[in-house]
Amino acid sequence: MFPVAARWDGSPGIFYTQTSYPHRMSEADFIARLRSIAVDPAARGLNDDAAVWDGLVLTHDMIVEGVHFLPDDTPQDVAWKLVAVNLSDLAAKGAAPVGVLVGYSLGDAAWDAAFADGLDLVLRRFGVILLGGDTVRVPAGAPRSFGLTAIGRAPPGGAPPRSGARPGDRIWVTGSIGNAGLGLAMRLGQEAANETCLAAYNRPQPQLTFGQAIAPHVHAMMDVSDGLLIDAQRMAIASGCQFGLMIEAFPLSAALLAVRPDIIDTRLAAATAGDDYQLLFTADPAAATAIGEIAAGLNVAVTAIGHAGVGEGILLTHRAQRVAVPARLGFMH
Amino acid sequence: MFPVAARWDGSPGIFYTQTSYPHRMSEADFIARLRSIAVDPAARGLNDDAAVWDGLVLTHDMIVEGVHFLPDDTPQDVAWKLVAVNLSDLAAKGAAPVGVLVGYSLGDAAWDAAFADGLDLVLRRFGVILLGGDTVRVPAGAPRSFGLTAIGRAPPGGAPPRSGARPGDRIWVTGSIGNAGLGLAMRLGQEAANETCLAAYNRPQPQLTFGQAIAPHVHAMMDVSDGLLIDAQRMAIASGCQFGLMIEAFPLSAALLAVRPDIIDTRLAAATAGDDYQLLFTADPAAATAIGEIAAGLNVAVTAIGHAGVGEGILLTHRAQRVAVPARLGFMH
Repeated sequence: MFPVAARWDGSPGIFYTQTSYPHRMSEADFIARLRSIAVDPAARGLNDDAAVWDGLVLTHDMIVEGVHFLPDDTPQDVAWKLVAVNLSDLAAKGAAPVGVLVGYSLGDAAWDAAFADGLDLVLRRFGVILLGGDTVRVPAGAPRSFGLTAIGRAPPGGAPPRSGARPGDRIWVTGSIGNAGLGLAMRLGQEAANETCLAAYNRPQPQLTFGQAIAPHVHAMMDVSDGLLIDAQRMAIASGCQFGLMIEAFPLSAALLAVRPDIIDTRLAAATAGDDYQLLFTADPAAATAIGEIAAGLNVAVTAIGHAGVGEGILLTHRAQRVAVPARLGFMH
Repeated sequence: MFPVAARWDGSPGIFYTQTSYPHRMSEADFIARLRSIAVDPAARGLNDDAAVWDGLVLTHDMIVEGVHFLPDDTPQDVAWKLVAVNLSDLAAKGAAPVGVLVGYSLGDAAWDAAFADGLDLVLRRFGVILLGGDTVRVPAGAPRSFGLTAIGRAPPGGAPPRSGARPGDRIWVTGSIGNAGLGLAMRLGQEAANETCLAAYNRPQPQLTFGQAIAPHVHAMMDVSDGLLIDAQRMAIASGCQFGLMIEAFPLSAALLAVRPDIIDTRLAAATAGDDYQLLFTADPAAATAIGEIAAGLNVAVTAIGHAGVGEGILLTHRAQRVAVPARLGFMH
């Protein structure tokens, strides 16, 4: 769904005050204008991971060469990412995926054939049908750009909104964060390669089964695509709460801690790197047992990382000491 | 939905044997590979205007600057076209449109704002909601590229396929053909401007109301987007019929005939120009009265242009004389 600016609701925040992103204002204006058009409740104010209409969950994300993927990413990995990032939006609404439509920029035949192989693989992996789409030729030299619309069935109890967190809720995240960010650094040759982190970057795993199972127990849910901190801030703003996050609780993998010291900087870097595609959700503390049982049953790690309170934005602590919120909270598309 | 190659089903035809489009083979290969993935009946073999799933009709079309629209087309016209070409696919399946998701490449703020105004206008005009989408920045100098997914409700009796024509059917087309092609020539400065033809190019009108009303009476229906001849050939191939088309019956507007002589060349040029967004359909000859009444009631012109028979491809006549099928049948994306 819409990037950064789309999640901005006019409340005070950090990321639009950064002078390093002056061009963002026109994007913010544009998305604000789109929001004035998207008045139907199904659009959820363009302020959620997906639209929810008539029992269906619908999302559309694009990926552009040089922006969302590297020119030398394999076509199979690009196909995987295109599908996975959209299915992650469905997972965040507790939806069961059904099908996709693909918008495809043709390139050379070998790349296209390998992309199709990757598309076949990822659709089979998640049990999703190819419904249709379009192929276009773009002028020579133009970056490749792909769009995908994913459609799923909303959970019986309704798709949890991004805006449903309540003061008193416990805040949870699945899996580990920061692996994909480190994987990107490895892909760029900035780090020695490590299979776990590379796989997290190349082949993100949408948490579909867990999302469906947990949906009835949560107040708010979204996927972590741009960074834990920026996405937590978006959820806090959308919900009209303040999220108090405990840095020491952020779940870092053994693979990450094998190459990085376990210090605050490492934890903040992991929480602002993006591409995690984990689920961030809040629930009544009384739901903790149910959440733990579901997670254990599905072999998904879940970690409580903080609490929602009265206020706005995010507040960071490390072992009960306040820590300044970093200027850069995540990946800005 | 998928261009040219997607509509190719392996039967003998004309357009793939043209040596002037050698690069098409890789596109054909790619779409053939996608077809091997899209095995669910909802995808209709990627050989129809849209997917039909669970009572819904879904389509995704992209438009690229310099390919599907001119760099100096107004942003409002580009927004109109992006929506209209997709709604035309819904019209071809007799669907009632519901909503759209937009994939948008950001450019300069003024262009984007004008596009949003145009999007607002066209969505209001056709009573369609903006459900969601995505915005991305593309590297400087890259052509603008937009995608749109449109969702509608299938007609109660089912969405008429492209492949349903039967020998003995009468072949019909709505409105006039060739106006938009002449409008494009006017936009390119090759012709003196004429409001009717310019409007047909700049603001195509999807035949939504007529499509819904006529759907129960047709055997096959599709929209004419790339040219009457190429689209008729696609329908003939998909249906396993031969379409006999009477060139003298092709409906040309007074606006077109005001600047072109009424000769075969004019009629063939109009039938191969594309961008008409009229509906092409076939029906039992006994349905002619009902079709005429529906058309009259909606103030839509319909013209019988030929008959389906046993055989394959298209066969052209002019006043009962055989005319060779031109090498170029329409617009090749």
